[in-house]
Formats: sequence, structure tokens, C-alpha cells
Amino acid sequence: MAQVVLASNNVKKLAELQRILAPLVPGVEVLGLGDVAAYDEPAETEATFEGNALIKARAALAATGLPSLADDSGLCVDELNGMPGVLSARWSAGVVASGAERGVVDATNNRLLLGQLGDVPDGRRGARFRCVVALCVPGGVEVVESGEMPGRILREERGAGGFGYDPLFAADGHEVSTAELSVEDKDRISHRGEALRRIAPHVARVLT
Amino acid sequence: MAQVVLASNNVKKLAELQRILAPLVPGVEVLGLGDVAAYDEPAETEATFEGNALIKARAALAATGLPSLADDSGLCVDELNGMPGVLSARWSAGVVASGAERGVVDATNNRLLLGQLGDVPDGRRGARFRCVVALCVPGGVEVVESGEMPGRILREERGAGGFGYDPLFAADGHEVSTAELSVEDKDRISHRGEALRRIAPHVARVLT
Repeated sequence: MAQVVLASNNVKKLAELQRILAPLVPGVEVLGLGDVAAYDEPAETEATFEGNALIKARAALAATGLPSLADDSGLCVDELNGMPGVLSARWSAGVVASGAERGVVDATNNRLLLGQLGDVPDGRRGARFRCVVALCVPGGVEVVESGEMPGRILREERGAGGFGYDPLFAADGHEVSTAELSVEDKDRISHRGEALRRIAPHVARVLT
Repeated sequence: MAQVVLASNNVKKLAELQRILAPLVPGVEVLGLGDVAAYDEPAETEATFEGNALIKARAALAATGLPSLADDSGLCVDELNGMPGVLSARWSAGVVASGAERGVVDATNNRLLLGQLGDVPDGRRGARFRCVVALCVPGGVEVVESGEMPGRILREERGAGGFGYDPLFAADGHEVSTAELSVEDKDRISHRGEALRRIAPHVARVLT
């Protein structure tokens, strides 16, 4: 059976990628990177989601020899000129946390963002989640696709689902945060769902 | 003797404004706001330096009845799409600190910025300090001028002078940080020096 590796050490993101992608590519086994190889996440030194997604997918391909898919995503806040953007996961900490520390850093990131927007009135709290996925295949084929979810930053955390900034973000047309949505509802509207639906035909084409 | 009030509760910024402006407007007494009136700094809710400088100058005029000058300034980092910008003083804290807390918040802001730029290589650490000064005079005259100082973000704090992000910033053409410059050298190249030199003729014109 053809296999594709998802290059992420973020357990919650990995679960989300896997649950969205698997049904889109029947006949392809969707592996987490931890199932395949020991792997140090490379430094995400690019200034764009595209650049960082490619860094991660190329590193996973190099480590495993298997077709690899990586996500780089983040929250772009209008009032912060599109930041935290590529720095979303390390907005408060400077480094990307892993394992159990990830939850602590998520909470600290959320508190920092709320503070930075403390004086910002409701009409100026627009934001969007962006996701770029890169597929790198042995032999040199590389494909990049993206998705986004527009919405706004809430005034307090809401909900226990999701991860990252989800508790602070309400998508356009929704009163609740993306941490309060069912996974089905979230995946249908999310930046990650959109990006994966766009990349899925490429995965199917190169692998089956 | 004609008087102008500098609208700031930041002791170090006030000293800098006073030392630059006084010699530029001979015959005008340059007062700190604390010398004139009890004053709660208004919320800086605008998205631009111009807007916030005007909020502060208008509030000081309303509180004192005297011609009032306010500064709004900050550090605009290329890699952060121009942020922290108007949020510079509250980048890590959400609120603007005063008195002794200001030094603690400065240190926390600096640490946060260093962390956010941790992975950013030397060639992408460009930044500029911007300063906008607003003069509001009884009767309705309002004048706004600005200045900037381009440079780059260092990899560690250097020097004990200045305030805010000074220890992390080296101006173009300088190896040392703006916290290591003499006050004369700093004022000659600084965003605040430039803005005040531009507004000084207006102060002189309306007051003398």
C-alpha cells in the first residue's frame, strides 16, 4: 500500500492532519513521522509559511525516503500587520515547544495575544488562520497548496477543543470559537481542511 | 514666558524630550505634565503613531489649558511586518507600565522581541525607530511631525543608557546600540531628535 508521511511533532496537529487527509486519499496509508523515523524538527527559518512547509517536508523526505507532507500554519492578525504569522507557535517563547510543554506555550501565546489586543476595539479584531501544505516526493516532485479561514479575535478564551489559538478565534459566520466546534465542523471550514483538500488530488496522483 | 507642556508619564522619555526641545525653542519654558496637572494617561487606542500622539496631546491640552506636545513612538521590525509599532511599550504586557515598573516591562519586552527573532538571520534583522510628535494649541491649531532612525536588531542587550528597546538596536552606520551612545550622539541621529527638530519651528511660531 502506498504511504505518505506527515512531518509534524505536534501531536494535536498530527491527529488533525491525519483525520482530514486519510478519507481524501483512499488507498494511501497516512503515517505520522514518529511511526517511521527518529527525527529532529528542522529550524523554521523562512519568513513565509510556504518556505517553512517546504523545509519540513524536505527534511522528512530526507529522513524517511518516503513521500512527505508538511504543514506550516499560523494566525495572521490584521491589527498586528499579519503577525504572529510564521511565528505563531513561538510568539511568546522564541522556540517551538514539543510534547507536554506545547499546551503551556499555547496558553502563554494566547495570553500574550490577548494582552497585545487589549485596547483594540471590536471592529478592528479581524484575523485569519492560514495553512500551507507542501508535498515532497522522491525524485524531486514538490507541490504546495494553501487554505485560509477568516474570522476575528475574541476577548477571552472559549472552549477546550482544538489547539493553539483556537480558543481565541471565531470564524466568520460563527459566534463560538474554533475550540468549541465539533471536529467535523472545524475541518469543513478550517484553513487546514481547505489546504488538504487542495493537496489531496496531488497525493493521490503521485502515489496511486 | 511662554510655556509648552510635554505630555508623558514616562520619566526617561520626558527627560529626553525636554533635553532635545529646550535648546530648540529659546524663550519657551518646557514643562513636564507632572509639573502642571494631575493627569491620567488616556488609552492609546489608535492604530497609528499619529493618532496616538494626537490623543495624548489633546488630553494634555484639555487637562492644562496650555499648548501641549506629545510623542508617540516605537520600534518597527521588518521581520514582524513593522510590529511592535504602536504596541512597542506594551508588547509583552498588554498595558503600558509607569514608574518603577517601566524598567521591568522594558526588560520583558526586550526578552520577548529577542525570542521572536531568535531564528532570524543577520541579513533579515532590519528595523527602524519611528517617532511622531503632535502639538495642540488652545484655539484649535494642531501640528504633527515625524522622524525615524533606521538600523537593525542585535542578538543581545548592549549598554545601560537610553530606555525601551535601545539596548537591542544599532542604528545604521553604528556598531554599538543606541543604549551605548552618548545622549548627544543619540539625539543627533534619533527618531525623536528628528521629529522634535521638525516641530520646533511650529512651537516657536505659535508661542513666541
